[in-house]
Amino acid sequence: MGAQIGDAAEFTELESAAMAAALNAARDGVRGANPLVGAAILTADGQIVTGHHGGAGTPHAEVDAITTAHDLDIDLTTATLFVTLEPCDHHGRTGPCTEAILAAEIPSVVFASPDPNPLAAGGGNTLAEAGLTVRSGLCEEHSRALNARWVRSMTEARPFVTAKIAQSLDGAVAAADGTSQWITSAESRAHAHEVRSRVDAILVGTGTAVADDPRLNARNRDGIALDDQPRPVVLGTSELPVTSFLALNPNTLHLRTHDVRNALDQLRAAGVRHLLVEGGPTVLGAFFAAGVVDEVFCYQAPMLIGPGRSSVDGLDIGTLSDALQLIPDDTETPAVSLLGPDFLLHFATADPGPDSTGLPESVT
Amino acid sequence: MGAQIGDAAEFTELESAAMAAALNAARDGVRGANPLVGAAILTADGQIVTGHHGGAGTPHAEVDAITTAHDLDIDLTTATLFVTLEPCDHHGRTGPCTEAILAAEIPSVVFASPDPNPLAAGGGNTLAEAGLTVRSGLCEEHSRALNARWVRSMTEARPFVTAKIAQSLDGAVAAADGTSQWITSAESRAHAHEVRSRVDAILVGTGTAVADDPRLNARNRDGIALDDQPRPVVLGTSELPVTSFLALNPNTLHLRTHDVRNALDQLRAAGVRHLLVEGGPTVLGAFFAAGVVDEVFCYQAPMLIGPGRSSVDGLDIGTLSDALQLIPDDTETPAVSLLGPDFLLHFATADPGPDSTGLPESVT
Repeated sequence: MGAQIGDAAEFTELESAAMAAALNAARDGVRGANPLVGAAILTADGQIVTGHHGGAGTPHAEVDAITTAHDLDIDLTTATLFVTLEPCDHHGRTGPCTEAILAAEIPSVVFASPDPNPLAAGGGNTLAEAGLTVRSGLCEEHSRALNARWVRSMTEARPFVTAKIAQSLDGAVAAADGTSQWITSAESRAHAHEVRSRVDAILVGTGTAVADDPRLNARNRDGIALDDQPRPVVLGTSELPVTSFLALNPNTLHLRTHDVRNALDQLRAAGVRHLLVEGGPTVLGAFFAAGVVDEVFCYQAPMLIGPGRSSVDGLDIGTLSDALQLIPDDTETPAVSLLGPDFLLHFATADPGPDSTGLPESVT
Repeated sequence: MGAQIGDAAEFTELESAAMAAALNAARDGVRGANPLVGAAILTADGQIVTGHHGGAGTPHAEVDAITTAHDLDIDLTTATLFVTLEPCDHHGRTGPCTEAILAAEIPSVVFASPDPNPLAAGGGNTLAEAGLTVRSGLCEEHSRALNARWVRSMTEARPFVTAKIAQSLDGAVAAADGTSQWITSAESRAHAHEVRSRVDAILVGTGTAVADDPRLNARNRDGIALDDQPRPVVLGTSELPVTSFLALNPNTLHLRTHDVRNALDQLRAAGVRHLLVEGGPTVLGAFFAAGVVDEVFCYQAPMLIGPGRSSVDGLDIGTLSDALQLIPDDTETPAVSLLGPDFLLHFATADPGPDSTGLPESVT
């Protein structure tokens, strides 16, 4: 068959506006392991109806938009559907979007970027082969930036890794006597729990697990544990005290290895697509040294501790030119912000791409 | 005599606007050891003419405003003079402002804050005794904030001390092999030279002087040394190599002591009112431990070095609750800013007071 997906050159201003509306709708979704996806239906008379993906197990953006259009008695047989990500073609927790689009008798589909997940890709071809007009590439960069974490996890075939460093201004995580609780402020801890709520799993080394007896759960600002919890993960060969929070949590995954790559393989097999590494310094150093950290949140308390335990250990960098370079990242949030008295610095380890908060110029 | 200086309650909106104009004019002055001072002349028909102090040896703000008023043929015998700092009453590098005000036959003076310099104070009383209406306290907090460094130097009877820390994200100033040049970016170094240009003296320890052979001069963005140079100071009992830049500079002050208080006394006696301490880690630690650091610029390069030389040494803090607390300071510049890829954090060690960039509400 000669079914083909058209390329990016031929979009009207109204079509750009529809995709921008889809990108905006995508941002209403829940951040986490699933990609942020938005959809917009552009009717023959220029009306735009949007939808978005609300999180794992809920309708995909296309279906959400189609449902809204049906509720409004919109004629879909002359409409165009804009989606920020190629419509999926597989039965996951929900049915394939290609089927829903065909059932809705929409004749024309535009998607921004192809699906990097090999299991889900191919939806564009399926629709083209079914006779729909399918085009792609409109606002592709913006869509990619919106889901940089998820795309990276797919292309690197490992979980996206966020490292959390909480330290004093002079880079210490603990004073000389080991005291380390509450170096950072209540505002920083609230932010850290927000980050926890967005990931699939939180990892610490056995040293930290034994020393701090953490719960590694995500709590709201009132200290109440959220319903949907990330998976606690402990890395290392030591055993945990049987009465520790992590040992008592049936959900805890204990990876009895010191090999970071091996740990990531195990986590990926366990369905983890976004991992938060919280420490301690040895574990952070091991992840940095393995070159698998994608994002860094560095919380800095405005205090000097002097000689204390360094926040990142064992990088084995002998000379300055070998230092591990990070890239200030303001694609989603400012690269630096104040959290109470603390500074929060946000880094990528590779170019995070264009600013995902920017929109095409046609939207004002 | 019953000559008195009136208090702050009785100012009109127009008078507040005149003082706000004086505060704005003050900001046009040159930062440095001299205070920022602005003046405004409010005429009987509501016209406002401003002046400011342009740096050591140039006319004071009052004289600058009076000169402009004369140039404009303004009648000063019915005007009020607003000054952000009490008019000086002594012969420094310029004549006393009280004389200039009397000569100009201005009948009424309002100043924001009294002069903390005992040598220059008393101008308000002199003018009141000469029969002028003298009031004070209008926008006093704003005036104080404008000159927090200088006021602090006067009240503490020592130089105002700015500490510069340039480090990696994990708090190191050098890698394991000692390599430390250019940890921070060109933009950070340009900013550091701007800071150097505002101080009276720059201090390093003999260790840094020997290891880095620094010139400790202030250079512009093209690398050209400025005409007006801060004084280079070396702290410590070791001798410098005779061919080092600092040993060859006849202006270098070598303080052969390890006692920080003693060093500050010597510097004050040498006329230093604003000192920049650049390192190394031992010297920084000694100044912090002595409790004499007033301001901190912390340049952070977005890199991890792992085990390296810590940026501040010898604080002797055993436990976390004894950590030295700093206060993010956004009174003049943002508490945090991006300099190329680096972050610049700006701290005070005591409450810097109200935001000096804020103006009274009467100004819009």
